[in-house]
Amino acid sequence: MKYYAKIGRALAEGKMLKEGAVLPLSKSNAFVGQHFLMPAKGAAVFINAFNFPAWGLCEKSAPALLSGVPIVVKPASPTAWLAHRMVEDIVKAGILPSGAISIICGPARELLDHVREADTLSFTGSADTATRIRSHANVLRRSVRVNIEADSINSAILGPDGTPGSDLFDLLVKEVVREMTLKAGQKCTTIRRVLVPRRHLKAFGDAVSARLSSMKVGNPRNSEVKVGPVVNKAQQSSCLEGLRKLKEECSVLFGGDEQFQPLDANPQESAFVQPTLLSCRDGLDAKFVHDVEVFGPVATLVAYDSPENLIALTRRGMGSLVVSLFSNDPGFIQNALLGFGDLHGRVLVVDSSVGAQHTGHGNVVPSCLHGGPGRAGGGEELAGLRALLLYHRRFVVQGPATCIAELSGLCVDTNLLYS
Amino acid sequence: MKYYAKIGRALAEGKMLKEGAVLPLSKSNAFVGQHFLMPAKGAAVFINAFNFPAWGLCEKSAPALLSGVPIVVKPASPTAWLAHRMVEDIVKAGILPSGAISIICGPARELLDHVREADTLSFTGSADTATRIRSHANVLRRSVRVNIEADSINSAILGPDGTPGSDLFDLLVKEVVREMTLKAGQKCTTIRRVLVPRRHLKAFGDAVSARLSSMKVGNPRNSEVKVGPVVNKAQQSSCLEGLRKLKEECSVLFGGDEQFQPLDANPQESAFVQPTLLSCRDGLDAKFVHDVEVFGPVATLVAYDSPENLIALTRRGMGSLVVSLFSNDPGFIQNALLGFGDLHGRVLVVDSSVGAQHTGHGNVVPSCLHGGPGRAGGGEELAGLRALLLYHRRFVVQGPATCIAELSGLCVDTNLLYS
Repeated sequence: MKYYAKIGRALAEGKMLKEGAVLPLSKSNAFVGQHFLMPAKGAAVFINAFNFPAWGLCEKSAPALLSGVPIVVKPASPTAWLAHRMVEDIVKAGILPSGAISIICGPARELLDHVREADTLSFTGSADTATRIRSHANVLRRSVRVNIEADSINSAILGPDGTPGSDLFDLLVKEVVREMTLKAGQKCTTIRRVLVPRRHLKAFGDAVSARLSSMKVGNPRNSEVKVGPVVNKAQQSSCLEGLRKLKEECSVLFGGDEQFQPLDANPQESAFVQPTLLSCRDGLDAKFVHDVEVFGPVATLVAYDSPENLIALTRRGMGSLVVSLFSNDPGFIQNALLGFGDLHGRVLVVDSSVGAQHTGHGNVVPSCLHGGPGRAGGGEELAGLRALLLYHRRFVVQGPATCIAELSGLCVDTNLLYS
Repeated sequence: MKYYAKIGRALAEGKMLKEGAVLPLSKSNAFVGQHFLMPAKGAAVFINAFNFPAWGLCEKSAPALLSGVPIVVKPASPTAWLAHRMVEDIVKAGILPSGAISIICGPARELLDHVREADTLSFTGSADTATRIRSHANVLRRSVRVNIEADSINSAILGPDGTPGSDLFDLLVKEVVREMTLKAGQKCTTIRRVLVPRRHLKAFGDAVSARLSSMKVGNPRNSEVKVGPVVNKAQQSSCLEGLRKLKEECSVLFGGDEQFQPLDANPQESAFVQPTLLSCRDGLDAKFVHDVEVFGPVATLVAYDSPENLIALTRRGMGSLVVSLFSNDPGFIQNALLGFGDLHGRVLVVDSSVGAQHTGHGNVVPSCLHGGPGRAGGGEELAGLRALLLYHRRFVVQGPATCIAELSGLCVDTNLLYS
């Protein structure tokens, strides 16, 4: 929010944004065209996921509010109490005009019957719910703009130069373990597939397993514990069900015990999933590895044999939020990126020079795009000021040059969005 | 096609497009971010309308081909023979790489089962078919990018200063008649509603009716004829059905006779719709006027009482491809545009200074956006080089500054798209 408030100051009093050059439409240049962007005169409706009740609200709110578009948020029920408290605090602070933010807790009921053509619907959550939202009759009839961030089988890649013992090897081992265990793997950006040169598969599995075996799983109130439970019994069942599918085509390198005993917690009353590392030797023949998102502390190593094989395997994710490349080889990085960049929202490149200071596979930052194509939903939630585009509508005005000049006088240039 | 070929030369050998500034992500600036756009590695699938079998193919082909994306076109069956001939000529000319353009004639059958996450689906046609495409299981599951141009109840507005006898009044009368009769009103951009100050409603209706009465409707091979039939019996039935709905809440000022006799043609064998002008005195109470697109030579005058009333009536169109403003009053124009710009893809402003040289309400030009929000589908088919955005995917690369610099070396800057 602070990031956007700071850069947003430049928008100042502009009523619209002016995009691109004046277009000649007549020989005399008396009649010309100009593209503009205007905030939609509707509401921003957020249907949010359980795993980020506070940040999930804020990341979407900033660009909507900067666009001058009021917000209606419907948080996921398991953690709605926190989102409610956030909104309450914002309203009580009196920093926003009355009506700028509203919250609806509980089931969405007939919410989608009331959205209109100038509204923007932004959903974060499962692909199944995304499909229900996108195919809702009223949403379709009015072509309501829908931004989706859904299931994503994100990948991390160890380059062919990432031999055991190298810093790149160790950096990725650490990153995989962090991603699997942080929030018990309940992040949309978490690494689900780790693509490793076949000859390093065993060493990599051993290294991740060794780290996982030292991490206590149990009651987060216990100071020894490093990994907590998933959010509730329903998520636990869903994770275990997905895990059973993965086991059909993968071997288990670590964990995977449905009956495991968490530390200082009653398995009957809690919702633990044991951190589990799997291994897949025949990635191109596998189905679930590329298709089932186990939303918990679970990752699968997939062996690759060549750059072409790597690109094909990565593309099998059907579109992801993020892919990481750990390598010191610029040629390998460029070839991979040109091979699958179009199916990703974010590409993280880590070489030895940035090992200590990269922002991480799973972290999103407001200045960079957050979202991904294909199964990841095709949405764009963040990306600096260009995130405002979601709440703006582009149109062209064709008219007398004098009229266009007057309208342009009301505007800030869209170059600002990309600066 | 020529327009795009000319401006597209600047894209040259770039493998990607670079968007915006380098983003600092670490204190040392060794780790930075950069947004890129890359052509999707899929196909552009066009499902096209019957009314523009040649131009409809070309307007979509230019930005797809410039993006390096191959085309599969499925033309509407009634006029598929012409689209087929177009594609045949292009293939025979040998100017495109083999496989760059393919055509499927006849029913689409299971075409949508085969589109994938890197494909782009572009549909022009009815809102009903658009809904079927958007809610197709495979399209939803893969979040296939869909561009729709569908029903649009476009408006033309006579400003309060457009008194009978003024040039503005005459210009709009001429424009309305041209729009109603050209291609027998079968253009997605045709004027469907004419919003007129209440005090000028009768005079305007009289003027349009007088012109219509002088235009012969019949066999286009007859040199006296100015207005031809609609494309087939099915379209004729659909027009007459829509017209019956409009008559429930409007009075008929001209035409509207289902049994009228076309010149030099057999009504049993042909598919004529008599040019029909209707009048609606209570626009805010009306429903069909704002909701039923009669895809033929039919328009409705709607009275307005004030600028606020005008904005409310225009917005009732639920999103349109184009709205025209005929006025010499800059304050009126600006107020109206700020009131409904977000629900339109294109706004045409005509004042006395450009009366003779404006490009017209119904004409689209490649440099300007073509498409509209809401019921018009939310698509963007044209708009100069920014039309290439439809076939590109945006992603951010976070990585070592050296790596970003190398990738940027492969790129043309996106500023080019807006120049």
